Amino acid sequence: MSLVRSLIAATLPAHAFSGTPLQIAEQLAALLASTAVERDQRGGTPYEQRQAIRDSGLLKLLIPPALGGLGGSWAELYQIIRILARADSSLAQVFAFQFLMLASIRLYGSDAQWKALWRETAQDNLWWGNALNPLDNRTVATPTVSGYRFSGQKSFCSGGRDSDRLIVSAIEEGTGRFLVAAVPTTRAGITLKDDWDNIGQRQTDSGSADFQSLEVAEHELLMLPGPFSSPFSGLRSLVAQLIFTNIYLGLTEGALAEAVIYTRSSTRVWSGSLASEVQQDPYILLHYGEFFASLEASRVLADRAADLLDAAWQQQLALTDAQRGELAIAVFAAKANITRAGLDITSRMFEVAGARATTARLRLDRYWRNLRVYTLHDPIDFKLKDLGDWLLNGQYPKPSFYS
Amino acid sequence: MSLVRSLIAATLPAHAFSGTPLQIAEQLAALLASTAVERDQRGGTPYEQRQAIRDSGLLKLLIPPALGGLGGSWAELYQIIRILARADSSLAQVFAFQFLMLASIRLYGSDAQWKALWRETAQDNLWWGNALNPLDNRTVATPTVSGYRFSGQKSFCSGGRDSDRLIVSAIEEGTGRFLVAAVPTTRAGITLKDDWDNIGQRQTDSGSADFQSLEVAEHELLMLPGPFSSPFSGLRSLVAQLIFTNIYLGLTEGALAEAVIYTRSSTRVWSGSLASEVQQDPYILLHYGEFFASLEASRVLADRAADLLDAAWQQQLALTDAQRGELAIAVFAAKANITRAGLDITSRMFEVAGARATTARLRLDRYWRNLRVYTLHDPIDFKLKDLGDWLLNGQYPKPSFYS
Amino acid sequence: MSLVRSLIAATLPAHAFSGTPLQIAEQLAALLASTAVERDQRGGTPYEQRQAIRDSGLLKLLIPPALGGLGGSWAELYQIIRILARADSSLAQVFAFQFLMLASIRLYGSDAQWKALWRETAQDNLWWGNALNPLDNRTVATPTVSGYRFSGQKSFCSGGRDSDRLIVSAIEEGTGRFLVAAVPTTRAGITLKDDWDNIGQRQTDSGSADFQSLEVAEHELLMLPGPFSSPFSGLRSLVAQLIFTNIYLGLTEGALAEAVIYTRSSTRVWSGSLASEVQQDPYILLHYGEFFASLEASRVLADRAADLLDAAWQQQLALTDAQRGELAIAVFAAKANITRAGLDITSRMFEVAGARATTARLRLDRYWRNLRVYTLHDPIDFKLKDLGDWLLNGQYPKPSFYS
Amino acid sequence: MSLVRSLIAATLPAHAFSGTPLQIAEQLAALLASTAVERDQRGGTPYEQRQAIRDSGLLKLLIPPALGGLGGSWAELYQIIRILARADSSLAQVFAFQFLMLASIRLYGSDAQWKALWRETAQDNLWWGNALNPLDNRTVATPTVSGYRFSGQKSFCSGGRDSDRLIVSAIEEGTGRFLVAAVPTTRAGITLKDDWDNIGQRQTDSGSADFQSLEVAEHELLMLPGPFSSPFSGLRSLVAQLIFTNIYLGLTEGALAEAVIYTRSSTRVWSGSLASEVQQDPYILLHYGEFFASLEASRVLADRAADLLDAAWQQQLALTDAQRGELAIAVFAAKANITRAGLDITSRMFEVAGARATTARLRLDRYWRNLRVYTLHDPIDFKLKDLGDWLLNGQYPKPSFYS
Repeated sequence: MSLVRSLIAATLPAHAFSGTPLQIAEQLAALLASTAVERDQRGGTPYEQRQAIRDSGLLKLLIPPALGGLGGSWAELYQIIRILARADSSLAQVFAFQFLMLASIRLYGSDAQWKALWRETAQDNLWWGNALNPLDNRTVATPTVSGYRFSGQKSFCSGGRDSDRLIVSAIEEGTGRFLVAAVPTTRAGITLKDDWDNIGQRQTDSGSADFQSLEVAEHELLMLPGPFSSPFSGLRSLVAQLIFTNIYLGLTEGALAEAVIYTRSSTRVWSGSLASEVQQDPYILLHYGEFFASLEASRVLADRAADLLDAAWQQQLALTDAQRGELAIAVFAAKANITRAGLDITSRMFEVAGARATTARLRLDRYWRNLRVYTLHDPIDFKLKDLGDWLLNGQYPKPSFYS
Repeated sequence: MSLVRSLIAATLPAHAFSGTPLQIAEQLAALLASTAVERDQRGGTPYEQRQAIRDSGLLKLLIPPALGGLGGSWAELYQIIRILARADSSLAQVFAFQFLMLASIRLYGSDAQWKALWRETAQDNLWWGNALNPLDNRTVATPTVSGYRFSGQKSFCSGGRDSDRLIVSAIEEGTGRFLVAAVPTTRAGITLKDDWDNIGQRQTDSGSADFQSLEVAEHELLMLPGPFSSPFSGLRSLVAQLIFTNIYLGLTEGALAEAVIYTRSSTRVWSGSLASEVQQDPYILLHYGEFFASLEASRVLADRAADLLDAAWQQQLALTDAQRGELAIAVFAAKANITRAGLDITSRMFEVAGARATTARLRLDRYWRNLRVYTLHDPIDFKLKDLGDWLLNGQYPKPSFYS
Repeated sequence: MSLVRSLIAATLPAHAFSGTPLQIAEQLAALLASTAVERDQRGGTPYEQRQAIRDSGLLKLLIPPALGGLGGSWAELYQIIRILARADSSLAQVFAFQFLMLASIRLYGSDAQWKALWRETAQDNLWWGNALNPLDNRTVATPTVSGYRFSGQKSFCSGGRDSDRLIVSAIEEGTGRFLVAAVPTTRAGITLKDDWDNIGQRQTDSGSADFQSLEVAEHELLMLPGPFSSPFSGLRSLVAQLIFTNIYLGLTEGALAEAVIYTRSSTRVWSGSLASEVQQDPYILLHYGEFFASLEASRVLADRAADLLDAAWQQQLALTDAQRGELAIAVFAAKANITRAGLDITSRMFEVAGARATTARLRLDRYWRNLRVYTLHDPIDFKLKDLGDWLLNGQYPKPSFYS
Repeated sequence: MSLVRSLIAATLPAHAFSGTPLQIAEQLAALLASTAVERDQRGGTPYEQRQAIRDSGLLKLLIPPALGGLGGSWAELYQIIRILARADSSLAQVFAFQFLMLASIRLYGSDAQWKALWRETAQDNLWWGNALNPLDNRTVATPTVSGYRFSGQKSFCSGGRDSDRLIVSAIEEGTGRFLVAAVPTTRAGITLKDDWDNIGQRQTDSGSADFQSLEVAEHELLMLPGPFSSPFSGLRSLVAQLIFTNIYLGLTEGALAEAVIYTRSSTRVWSGSLASEVQQDPYILLHYGEFFASLEASRVLADRAADLLDAAWQQQLALTDAQRGELAIAVFAAKANITRAGLDITSRMFEVAGARATTARLRLDRYWRNLRVYTLHDPIDFKLKDLGDWLLNGQYPKPSFYS
């Protein structure tokens, strides 16, 4: 742990958790929920809650016991992401990105690299931040004697601030090659700006990074085999898409749980209803029924996709294009369903929770704001197009950073 | 087999099938598909295709080997129903009702009764027809020395014609008790009318029965324990609802498979499209993507519900209210999803298949007509209400013949 | 009138109508309604009903009194089309095409041409059929000394059979120019096939024509000024699109009127409803409310577009691109709304009319079938795209035969 | 003007407007737009902007010239409300409520009362606030020698703060009669709390009022003829519902105008699009096309309803139940359409405006938040139910404060 991190940690309350990872996740979710409203308003970096996540031990969930981790599966991880997202989709995102970064290391790096970095992560309870945004090509890598020098901007660096390590990307000068590397966050030349102030996902620190002559050693590059070197390597985007899916899902579950509370406690049955109490009103029940039916569909799709990912992950380099393709279709179907269901539910929930549930004190609009922002990560229209291409033409989605 | 049935069978071609039940189902589906268009136009009782189903051996799928059957699971059965429904949702329905009738015997009859009837069914390859419609109370049961005499009408008797046995219901005179019995179709006093002529599910023979002093012996009553005697006994309606679900699903899969054929073979790309061929047109792909996403959701929900039913079935009388309730919720969620998805797809499929696919020669409208008719079995609004009651109030659906 | 037509007319009952054009339209609609179910089943050419339309005098509705007509406006005409479509959307279509053909003559022909043809139409009560399909370029025009010789096929020739005159199109050999001409239906070389057998709009005779060395005189060409010669000339496609719109609308109104009848007379309130009768059931009322709200929107949009068309029509050659563009936007908005609303209503109507309304005797599915077929005329996706191009980029739809 | 108001006005910049009322409204909208983002964040009472509205002269729009006003029609007023709502739906609401209060005076008061109060309003440029909420019966009226004493709470008092006059309601002790009165806002016994802090419509001051022994003179009661005394008197709720409709509509137009700006300026075309620039992307255009089609429908419905209201208003006491009923149906249809269209557009707009448009700097989420809050005024489900009751049963909506 860096000195700065140690100093920060020292000022924060230590949180104790116990039980299975799922139980710990529930405890963590309860902790996050207790301040979620206030932190949604404030934005910025939630040091205390980040420390609690560190304290939970869950940052090493996916790392095998042999490397010092908890040996959890992707299926278990996605359950945990969902549990956290119910309470706080911002922290669920930066927690989940730990594993997207670990997946990047695993899929792009050599055996020696990923094992060493995973082991170190488990041992030092490291948290990885993201500075890889493949759509932003402003960061350029200039060759040096011992590696590269990265300079330029990078936007949408979720979870970079207060992290221990970063996955960074740059365009190699001359060749245009897309380079990925793993570096310590504290290294000279890295500035992570506090410039994320958006209408949702407000505590994800998805702002910009500024690299000024950042020295990256040859051995820090994750380019052997690197991105898109195999169907297995192409799992990264599916790991990411399934993270989004589960956060959308958990977030929507959280919204619905709150709606239930307010319908039961504060909504009045409307004059003209045949029901004597709001909980029996036919329209209220119809809304809830529609919410449940669509959410349940998303849940089973997400669960099935997670199982398929676990199976694909175990295949390693033996994974075929078709196997990856089947997984991609399963992930995209889940994502498409929850995107539409979630946006509907987080908006329509107010029609059952009632006008009084719009008080700013509750900030129940944050569910829609969070989902609205996060579902823009990449256009759902193109995921549907990919699904259509599969159904009509039998074409699997072409592996990319988004599909 | 009755004499009449034997005579009918003798005039019909014998069909040979081989392989696993799923393979046999595919062969059967291909056979049904070859005449589906013509038979949709004709309506009436499809003796030849019914004989093919008899020849397939699948009528004893669910019966345990110990009783002479194939020992298939509900999950396997629903797969088979879906396979048949892709080709012909009418015959899928009457095939499926064999198992709804067997389930009724199992759930309402005594151990001795159901074992004897299941064994006899397997041995003689009997096909059971339905005359139970609980909403039609025009048939009255008058006590006799040895049982009852049933007289009156009964509507919506799917699969009654050309059946070997019938499950019939009547209202007991005086008490109003709802009686269920199993009788031979050929017994004196039973007239199954050829009066089903509707816009969809045209070969299900869902017309009316006329009972005139039908003698029903005491031992033919399935009243010990009878309907609603336990959570286990309450599985009947869930078996039925999951039959509907899988027929809607298979039917929609069949529609979509045809749409793909016509888009690929006969649709032209519209002037103004940025694509040079229709298979790459963004709007065509978007429609297909939406179809796939919603259909896939219905598929996983239906599969999960079938697994839950198998588990519940094995519980027998140990099945709790809560376990039945969870199953009901799973079944209703699946049914709600496919009802909406299917109606959308079977109508919108023409927007991708094109104007030429409306030729009467193809009768592609039969998918929508079949689904439209069959989804009216009981109002989906009330299934959504039940799901809402679960989400908002934690109430499981109250067991009835429909939920 | 041709000899054949005279002979046909002589065998048919004469129908008497009286009152204003709108009143006559209502009488005509009642007449069409009385046999609509049977004729939907039969298909083919409805000679008797076509004769009734001829007898109604409405074929000259739009023709100014000075030329022997009734002097009706487009707004009035569209009301009449809607009234007829409620009862019979096939005959509404062929009736409406009379005016699309007259509009083609007016917009493409010279002053002398259109006045003569309109006058003759009024005087002889001529009915014009359509053989213009611009997407089918199989008919070729070869120059002759006095004009052209047309040879080849033409598909989707609605209302060609039993017509007096035809608007035909062909591709000029060598130049590829699109030629339009007005010819008598009985001329040698024209064969109108009885090959329209589709799942909807079954009595529109939208089959194919076969031209074999059809002689077309120079003066029969409607090429001065011809298609797309001015914004005014570009009104033809908008006349057509507004015909579709009003037929979709009338058809949907007809469907809804029938649904109301069956809900009120034969639907039973579902067990579990808080209402004691189906007419007060909250879900039934919600469906009807949604139907009304969307249909009303389509109605006001269609009415407004008709008024704009009347204004544009009066502008004649002074009509500007912008004025035509505004009209196009108004027409497309109306068409987009009723396309979606109508498909929803004609399918969902059964959820309020109930399972018994699916009897083949009523053929209530014909509303959906008719609308489903007719809404495929040109893809609604591209109309929405045009509306989007207007909103986002300020671009009016580019005049074509479809926009 | 009260002393306090005079003092406030003196500290604020004076705004000059010129031209027709519609032109003035556009100027006012531009002024409101310039600070709308900042004020959405701040909430509270916008004294300066309220003063600008006062300065605009539009508070007397509807008052006839004979009484000192501008003589505008309801149609013109609703246009103005819509123009203001594009920029700021909070101030559009409190502006619009001026006319709901004037309508209450006109409809509930005697001829002498309403003429005097309307004249005084025009002369002194008075602004009326709302404290009538009929669902909140906590304020009780106790008879005194000269009238009543009102005591108790009242919630949702939009536009009460910084107003000159109030319309207040109370339940008469003993009889339960619902009393309405017009009083000066500064009268002793009235406390308007600064307690409105909600997620939308943040500057409407829709907080609570506290009445402590508020003296209300007999002549201040608006009870001759009072509420629901005639179909004409029942216009109040329709005036209100059409206010909501037009605010929803203007607000959505404002959202869409911003979306266009961001699509054109900052959205990038997604990889995989067949278009080379985002403005030609088929999916982007499809979204915009759907937005336009639904918004246009709402616009024409709202315009038609406004014309019907003007006609009904002129009928005065001659207005029949049926005429009021037709108007109610027209208003509800408009409201139902824009409620659904607006919620869809203000949420989906981000899918065309892009991820960068979620920056908190723009607060583009305010459109959805404002609409989401305001559409909860009364449940749209029950408006749809009313429309269904009309279509199915021919029943007009029963006049109430909400229908």
